[in-house]
Amino acid sequence: MTKTQQLARHLAGLKAENLYRRDFFWTWDKTGDELDAVFTVADALRDLRQRNQSTRIFDSGLGISIFRDNSTRTRFSFASACNLLGLEVQDLDEKKSQIAHGETVRETANMVSFMADVIGIRDDMFIGHGHEYMKTFMDAVDEGYSAGILEQRPTLVNLQCDVDHPTQCMADMLHLIHHFGGVEHLKGKKVAMTWAYSPSYGKPLSVPQGVIGLFTRFGMDVVLAHPQGYDVMPEVEQVAAANAAASGGRFRKVSTMAEAFEGADIVYPKSWAPFAAMEERTRLYTAGDQAGIDALEQQLLAQNAQHKDWTCSEEMMTRTREGKALYLHCLPADITGLSCTAGEVDESVFQRYMVPLYQQASYKPYIIAAMIFLAQVQDPVQALLALDGDSRLRKQF
Amino acid sequence: MTKTQQLARHLAGLKAENLYRRDFFWTWDKTGDELDAVFTVADALRDLRQRNQSTRIFDSGLGISIFRDNSTRTRFSFASACNLLGLEVQDLDEKKSQIAHGETVRETANMVSFMADVIGIRDDMFIGHGHEYMKTFMDAVDEGYSAGILEQRPTLVNLQCDVDHPTQCMADMLHLIHHFGGVEHLKGKKVAMTWAYSPSYGKPLSVPQGVIGLFTRFGMDVVLAHPQGYDVMPEVEQVAAANAAASGGRFRKVSTMAEAFEGADIVYPKSWAPFAAMEERTRLYTAGDQAGIDALEQQLLAQNAQHKDWTCSEEMMTRTREGKALYLHCLPADITGLSCTAGEVDESVFQRYMVPLYQQASYKPYIIAAMIFLAQVQDPVQALLALDGDSRLRKQF
Amino acid sequence: MTKTQQLARHLAGLKAENLYRRDFFWTWDKTGDELDAVFTVADALRDLRQRNQSTRIFDSGLGISIFRDNSTRTRFSFASACNLLGLEVQDLDEKKSQIAHGETVRETANMVSFMADVIGIRDDMFIGHGHEYMKTFMDAVDEGYSAGILEQRPTLVNLQCDVDHPTQCMADMLHLIHHFGGVEHLKGKKVAMTWAYSPSYGKPLSVPQGVIGLFTRFGMDVVLAHPQGYDVMPEVEQVAAANAAASGGRFRKVSTMAEAFEGADIVYPKSWAPFAAMEERTRLYTAGDQAGIDALEQQLLAQNAQHKDWTCSEEMMTRTREGKALYLHCLPADITGLSCTAGEVDESVFQRYMVPLYQQASYKPYIIAAMIFLAQVQDPVQALLALDGDSRLRKQF
Repeated sequence: MTKTQQLARHLAGLKAENLYRRDFFWTWDKTGDELDAVFTVADALRDLRQRNQSTRIFDSGLGISIFRDNSTRTRFSFASACNLLGLEVQDLDEKKSQIAHGETVRETANMVSFMADVIGIRDDMFIGHGHEYMKTFMDAVDEGYSAGILEQRPTLVNLQCDVDHPTQCMADMLHLIHHFGGVEHLKGKKVAMTWAYSPSYGKPLSVPQGVIGLFTRFGMDVVLAHPQGYDVMPEVEQVAAANAAASGGRFRKVSTMAEAFEGADIVYPKSWAPFAAMEERTRLYTAGDQAGIDALEQQLLAQNAQHKDWTCSEEMMTRTREGKALYLHCLPADITGLSCTAGEVDESVFQRYMVPLYQQASYKPYIIAAMIFLAQVQDPVQALLALDGDSRLRKQF
Repeated sequence: MTKTQQLARHLAGLKAENLYRRDFFWTWDKTGDELDAVFTVADALRDLRQRNQSTRIFDSGLGISIFRDNSTRTRFSFASACNLLGLEVQDLDEKKSQIAHGETVRETANMVSFMADVIGIRDDMFIGHGHEYMKTFMDAVDEGYSAGILEQRPTLVNLQCDVDHPTQCMADMLHLIHHFGGVEHLKGKKVAMTWAYSPSYGKPLSVPQGVIGLFTRFGMDVVLAHPQGYDVMPEVEQVAAANAAASGGRFRKVSTMAEAFEGADIVYPKSWAPFAAMEERTRLYTAGDQAGIDALEQQLLAQNAQHKDWTCSEEMMTRTREGKALYLHCLPADITGLSCTAGEVDESVFQRYMVPLYQQASYKPYIIAAMIFLAQVQDPVQALLALDGDSRLRKQF
Repeated sequence: MTKTQQLARHLAGLKAENLYRRDFFWTWDKTGDELDAVFTVADALRDLRQRNQSTRIFDSGLGISIFRDNSTRTRFSFASACNLLGLEVQDLDEKKSQIAHGETVRETANMVSFMADVIGIRDDMFIGHGHEYMKTFMDAVDEGYSAGILEQRPTLVNLQCDVDHPTQCMADMLHLIHHFGGVEHLKGKKVAMTWAYSPSYGKPLSVPQGVIGLFTRFGMDVVLAHPQGYDVMPEVEQVAAANAAASGGRFRKVSTMAEAFEGADIVYPKSWAPFAAMEERTRLYTAGDQAGIDALEQQLLAQNAQHKDWTCSEEMMTRTREGKALYLHCLPADITGLSCTAGEVDESVFQRYMVPLYQQASYKPYIIAAMIFLAQVQDPVQALLALDGDSRLRKQF
């Protein structure tokens, strides 16, 4: 039996049919079985590709991407996922569009979706805006499909909003599952999700939020740490607490990086902006006050600079389990001694973990492809088996 | 018999072979049978896609797009059409090219066309320039093909020039055909193509020109209205008059929006720039006088502002046939109360017609695909029948 | 026997297996047989396409392009080559990426390559940087592949570095081979690779370097001429001298354009920047001194302007063999009387050679496709024969 056949058999035992024709906003919208289905299909697609089997399920069709913030790895992961399934990426560059001429989100959503099977959106910088934008967009697409304007109802893959970063955190988790030899080995593992100092810019909260919202579902001991004023959204902390209770895990907050790292199996030290600053930025953005946003950014970086001791140094790493916790980062990191004089992580720590870090990132294209696959394919078990036995090769010679 | 088979049978009765290997500049270059062929193939491609049949006629090949003005819907419509047929879009972004280094249109045309099957160009802002650019481009491509430089002679789809906007107006017309239950029901219908106030920018004349140049071929009563100084190109008015005479329809001009709307079955209220301003802008553009262009834009908007009463208000709509004329717009519209304080149309009117408006837009990808199909496929009847019976699906599972 | 079958038979006699899974940095890294293999596959792919045979060897996969300098023809040639083989181009636009946030080349290389089969890079402006960048990039990809991060090891096509421009010079050479009726007719032909005046900008040295490094391998009499101070890299001159000695050809330098043109069979008059300026520019670039770079550009153009007599005028052309040397240029050229008042070539000369010039350019997509094909296909002879006999067509109807 091939690995894909085994995975298809596992998938057959999961209740995941509600992923079909649905959007992927947040991991906590999905059941455990549904998340398991995404991991399973991601592994199967990777197995098929490694064996040079074609995974092209679309003969034509578009994957629309909308990046309202810079991106390298998510952009290329989305493009890779679409290409793997046979969709062509068409990027909506708002600067080249008539959106400047005042059209509504509702209108844009329909105008770009005539032949779209998937919509991938990143909109992460403004608290209360990113998710709202995606929701408005997909509601409009719903209306368009119901009214017969769109031939098909494209499904959303959230490529990072203000609340969650599901493709990142699911890739992180699949990395953990493989690193520790199976999801069953994650129970009780201590994860330190901690703030770290960055001199570069005020980063979104969606990664720490996504991590506590997802990792707490696997019976892990999830510890969140940050300096005063860097709280994440309280709604997401509640999600994390409820998850932990349900999964037999733990979710707690501590006030120093050292405490969080103490005995940790996994550390995820990463910068984000102070919550109040994010809210203020949203206010300024709504008011169109770019000068205000720029001034706020300076102020926020000054606030960050009061916490330069929040850094994943060699000394800090020694506190973790046997000094050998698995280091995670969504990349790019601010690396002390390489990309900046003081940042999130010491260069020597980063270098030591480079291979696992890049492996962590390498799951993202497959996670995205699996999300698309499960939203678009009515019988994913049969589809995987058909692809497994197909004579079509990805590379012909 | 499937719908596509019926449409193929209809196509077989049309004399449309002159579309093969030809460019699509203006609708009035084409015969009635040729326009009918485009509508027929557009409907067939839509039927095939709705039935999940693959419409991929190219295994590889490029569709080159050149947008010399901003675009959302035409950009995505062109990308959708190319993708539907198996072509990959490659956009010529003049900012990233060596065109800044002084190469000629003739050279660019050949350099981007080595593996191009289709060229889509938008160049609409400067009277006397857009069409000229397309002509020069395609003449160069002709020479290149004759000289054996190009393996194939790509065909042009005019994505909006200074004279016509054929993909828009053909989509508008296909919408009317379906809305009114067949082309035979359009005879005698009154259409009001009228200027409307816009505070946003000096818009091209190609939509009103394209509309009067096309709609007059279907026996309709086409009325053009605009404030003094907002004339369209006299050559196109002559085309419209001649068309009307030939089709048993009517073409006339009136001087108020109210008169145009009176008893109308269809209204198309839309802003465009004063003709003299467009000519002056062309002169300034040729002289490279950007400051002059900017000053002119302000002056032009001030002139527009003298005609704020030219707006598609609820009151104005009551004048139309039973107060229920079909409202058309090429989008995006300047919507009073939504995107501006005073614009082309009241928000309540726009909202009421939103579904038909988006349906109108949804024909454009299929119109473009049909233009490509008929220019590229020697025996389109046989090709449609083959696609109809093919075992290849667009989405495999 | 088809032309492709003949070419496959020729290919079978060449020792070219070392092209498989290797990068293409410089032509002088490759053996004569390997270069012959590239020409042979390029001709075969062109023959297959002319006969409407599909040459799609990839069902999915990405071709990543990175243009660190403007480009039209190389950009479209790379896109055409990828599309011809079934790869989708994904351009890394560094402005839209997080590279601004400080990530390393090593990281970017892995992050964009998860599903990449080919990487095409242009980085030509800074002496000592372009090749270095490509090398660092591909070393990182090697590490990623070895560590199981990447599923496949993408291969590099150098789309122009600071040292060589192999896709250009190989296309130039294939043009010569066909123009003169076979590689055996090139022996003894005199080629004048000369500097020419340009008012536009300080152009890279990679074309003259690539030409002398490649053309000297075919027994030609290669003459390099430039004003004082416009030397090319001495390492490349040494390569050229060694090549000439090995091929029974000649490589020499003369100090005037007239002397170089005297009795030449082929002329390649083209501007490049003074070597010292290129080195200074690299220094300023490393220091991030944009004002210094701009000032240097002015100084460099002033230096250029002292040599306006270095131009391919009609008078200069009369010195060549029977006044009819074949004129080459990589395009775009600075054309006196067309794109500037004084430039590299008279308008009348340029116009007379326009068809062969565009033909010269038309080989580039096939050269790039052949480089990809030979780096990606283990048994290219068998693959060409299979494509030749395949029932799949490029355009179906």
